[in-house]
Amino acid sequence: MGMTQATAPAINDLTARHRERLDGALTALATRDYWSAFPESPSPRVYGETAAADGDKAFRAHLDADFPLDQPGTNGRVAPERSPYGVELNIRYPHADPQALLRAALDALPAWRDAGPDERVGVCLEILDRLHQRVFELAYAVQFTTGQAFVMAFQAGGAHALDRALEAIAAAYRAMTDVPRNAHWTKPAGKGDPLRMTKTFQVVPRGVALVVGCNTFPTWNSWPGLFASLATGNPVIVKPHPGAVLPLAITVAVAREVLAEAGHSPDLVALTAEDRGEGLASVLATDPRVRLVDYTGSTEYGDWLEAHARQATVFTEKAGVNTVLVDSTDDFAGMCRNLAFSLTLYSGQMCTTPQTILVPAGGIATDAGHKTFEEVSRGVADAVAALTADDARAVELTGAIVNDAVLERVNSARSLGTVLLDSRVLHHPNFADAVARTPLVVLLDADAEAAYGAEWFGPIAFIVPTVDTARSIAILRDITSAKGALTSLVYSTDNKVIDEVTRAALDVGVHLSINLTGGVFVNQSAAFSDFHATGANPAANASLTDGAFVTNRFRIVQSRSHSTTP
Amino acid sequence: MGMTQATAPAINDLTARHRERLDGALTALATRDYWSAFPESPSPRVYGETAAADGDKAFRAHLDADFPLDQPGTNGRVAPERSPYGVELNIRYPHADPQALLRAALDALPAWRDAGPDERVGVCLEILDRLHQRVFELAYAVQFTTGQAFVMAFQAGGAHALDRALEAIAAAYRAMTDVPRNAHWTKPAGKGDPLRMTKTFQVVPRGVALVVGCNTFPTWNSWPGLFASLATGNPVIVKPHPGAVLPLAITVAVAREVLAEAGHSPDLVALTAEDRGEGLASVLATDPRVRLVDYTGSTEYGDWLEAHARQATVFTEKAGVNTVLVDSTDDFAGMCRNLAFSLTLYSGQMCTTPQTILVPAGGIATDAGHKTFEEVSRGVADAVAALTADDARAVELTGAIVNDAVLERVNSARSLGTVLLDSRVLHHPNFADAVARTPLVVLLDADAEAAYGAEWFGPIAFIVPTVDTARSIAILRDITSAKGALTSLVYSTDNKVIDEVTRAALDVGVHLSINLTGGVFVNQSAAFSDFHATGANPAANASLTDGAFVTNRFRIVQSRSHSTTP
Repeated sequence: MGMTQATAPAINDLTARHRERLDGALTALATRDYWSAFPESPSPRVYGETAAADGDKAFRAHLDADFPLDQPGTNGRVAPERSPYGVELNIRYPHADPQALLRAALDALPAWRDAGPDERVGVCLEILDRLHQRVFELAYAVQFTTGQAFVMAFQAGGAHALDRALEAIAAAYRAMTDVPRNAHWTKPAGKGDPLRMTKTFQVVPRGVALVVGCNTFPTWNSWPGLFASLATGNPVIVKPHPGAVLPLAITVAVAREVLAEAGHSPDLVALTAEDRGEGLASVLATDPRVRLVDYTGSTEYGDWLEAHARQATVFTEKAGVNTVLVDSTDDFAGMCRNLAFSLTLYSGQMCTTPQTILVPAGGIATDAGHKTFEEVSRGVADAVAALTADDARAVELTGAIVNDAVLERVNSARSLGTVLLDSRVLHHPNFADAVARTPLVVLLDADAEAAYGAEWFGPIAFIVPTVDTARSIAILRDITSAKGALTSLVYSTDNKVIDEVTRAALDVGVHLSINLTGGVFVNQSAAFSDFHATGANPAANASLTDGAFVTNRFRIVQSRSHSTTP
Repeated sequence: MGMTQATAPAINDLTARHRERLDGALTALATRDYWSAFPESPSPRVYGETAAADGDKAFRAHLDADFPLDQPGTNGRVAPERSPYGVELNIRYPHADPQALLRAALDALPAWRDAGPDERVGVCLEILDRLHQRVFELAYAVQFTTGQAFVMAFQAGGAHALDRALEAIAAAYRAMTDVPRNAHWTKPAGKGDPLRMTKTFQVVPRGVALVVGCNTFPTWNSWPGLFASLATGNPVIVKPHPGAVLPLAITVAVAREVLAEAGHSPDLVALTAEDRGEGLASVLATDPRVRLVDYTGSTEYGDWLEAHARQATVFTEKAGVNTVLVDSTDDFAGMCRNLAFSLTLYSGQMCTTPQTILVPAGGIATDAGHKTFEEVSRGVADAVAALTADDARAVELTGAIVNDAVLERVNSARSLGTVLLDSRVLHHPNFADAVARTPLVVLLDADAEAAYGAEWFGPIAFIVPTVDTARSIAILRDITSAKGALTSLVYSTDNKVIDEVTRAALDVGVHLSINLTGGVFVNQSAAFSDFHATGANPAANASLTDGAFVTNRFRIVQSRSHSTTP
């Protein structure tokens, strides 16, 4: 009895080569202390003197060219991207026949399944290593498709995304190896010979996995699902957002290259680039062969996927309304600076950016004495203004606006209340056509919940006076329960208030940051330590990376037979 | 900052008291060798001279009486059970208002959540201990509601069910404790002070859990979901099958007693007994407050739950068609005896009972020389006849027929093909009104796939001649893919055939037993070692007990704040 095990020496090398990194990730997951496998600084001291220039060159080689991707079923080319920096892209991707990709994926499944967890994880870690070798190219690809500023694109789109991918692979590995590959079962039988069985447990994948990427974080948000599915044995079809194809096209190219080198079918990972409006995600997500879907994007489409992709397990990260509750602070200036940075970073185009800031109408106690509501809201608005005063420095924080809908939303938001700080046009020193804006800060009445209780994605923040902190807590509960949230943040020097907000956060299922006044920001989460989303409120049904994110990507199939030897 | 932790010394005692048992279960899960916490022998040498009589007395005290259960919202009484043994039951259960139970459950949730994994698991293990103290009473309750024979009711309904419950609790504990309760996060910051954060991670439940029991295995099939949900912080409402209420009523009573003693709300576990046809499961399963559903029963209703209980994560074990593939054997007599026992046990009323036996029309090689197809099918039928020849001994294997639908099905199956062994009435020596039958064995043509490819739940087996083993493998694949299966079984002396069937089992996602000729039967699975169902074919979407069975019953909610000390 036995299962055919593919034996490819090169793969064993890959597993061994990356063993230390995997062990580091597993240890980090168990302790949740700081750990990182991929340096986040793009400094030449870390990556070498020519790394940035080489990456830039590699990125530019893609422009106005056919993207090289040798996969089945290509019917012409599509070039759907438009850069928020105004850079002409015209990168032409294969326009794939999804039926051909599905067939090729299923053909490749059995051998990949039988390769086993160690071999698959070794291949996945090698893919990460190759992606890391191209991290500057990826950073530029992220920057010029999403509008992120370069440093953020390098970190969130490169190093941190690699860490998040590694985290997902490690979590999948842990889940798969919770079950031993073989067991000997010996049951005592009184005075007679014991009953003896030999048992084999094999991880089997669910089927074809679909990853639906988003426009703003094509790598950070897509890689965890992609690698969790691949590591657990599922072929993966990547459907990028038409606005941010290149980072995922590079990802797929690298994955296919490594798979082929390691003796596996490259068709285990494929790209389905599409023109805007084609609706390929809906076709693929409802195909009976697709059994896993990972999605990041709008609540509307995420809800549609959950309702219609019934044959699949669907992991969604949708939108929410992130609330900040200001009760009191022992560092007023630090609070304002910290909030201003969070509001400004990538022009508020992060699912984790705070939006609705609740402040008691009677003002708050601070280290600088009592501050009136007006002083608090002025403090936040002024801190944003100071942070964005210089255009050349501001754009390195704000990046560019990802699409016109965000601009229109900023315009609409102006008329919702009293503008405390208007959004203004930023002129990028290097990209004349870049569309960049500073955050808009609007004062809303407490009864304007229809406005501040809804998501206004983009550089838009609301400051709302409330009767008192108890009322602020009630509003945080209501908004988060109804609309969901990725993050919440409280400022208070009163442990009783902290306890009450902590309890509210548990009740409505949202992660809580407390009194952030320094170099940690509510919109950032650290791989191996911070969970991203909870899966416990309407903003997401999954979390990066908890057990539920990986365990449903595979099943265990067992065989057993009598054994004469112990 | 901090979460209120309930501190109840008694609970810490419970956790400590059961620590050794929990550790044993965790070790067993990691090795999957034989392990059991609850002795399976009802012998007086194990349980004491008076245990059986005491249990019988306790069981009889329930008859023709109001079942004592002090829970909210009771509107009168229901007594829906009818014993397959013809024993007058008339046990009157509270007829609960589901709205009152849901409200009470949600009220009890926050304190149970905040009690934490160790305390919750300690309480769950204490409940198992108390159930074990009443294991004879439970065995009689299972016997006289389900129709199981006593020894089976004691084992499958008592000791083994306790082991399966313990397995689920241990798996939940492992999943919850994969994430540390607290972490210190220290990120180096060049020459400056490192960034330091203190982080807290709390397990939060999904909401109210619903357990929908079945008529045949009210404890074995319901306890894993019940205890997995409860251990992870979810209040549980138990909706028993109207035919098998008592075992779950005792379960709920014991759980409420332990919860109250430990200082928790007894409303964390409640019973909703109903009259036949009330449809309470559908009302509860689609309530927005219900976020977890565990179900065992028909495919039709399981599919309905999966389609309609959209707000919940639904774990189903439905029906399938279990196939036996006979290719060759080195122990013909052992094979026939083993199969006969599997077909006879509990009159084939197990979801794991084999139904469709595929044999090459040209016969097979055996240790006793070549056997024609007729000799093989005769061998199996004769072994069943021999096993059931003596009524008094037969009923200790067959038990009684759970309901009239099974009897009608036996009658219908007779006309499907050639009857090799007719089902006959068994007279129970102690229960004159017991409805007991021997298995029916029918020869079907290979083209009668509409018959042998569908589920015929009950004491009904089909033997089907196939062109050859390759064709048998194809049929196994087709049936299992289309209808699902809980088990599959192959007999072959040819390693190549074993490999091919193993591959088929992996492809269609069904557990495989190989060459069972001794004291292990395909319809039995051992807790801590054998998985029950795969979740990878239409017979079930979940498996007892893999990671996916427990990880989706909770989420992690995190809080973080700056820290000045490492």
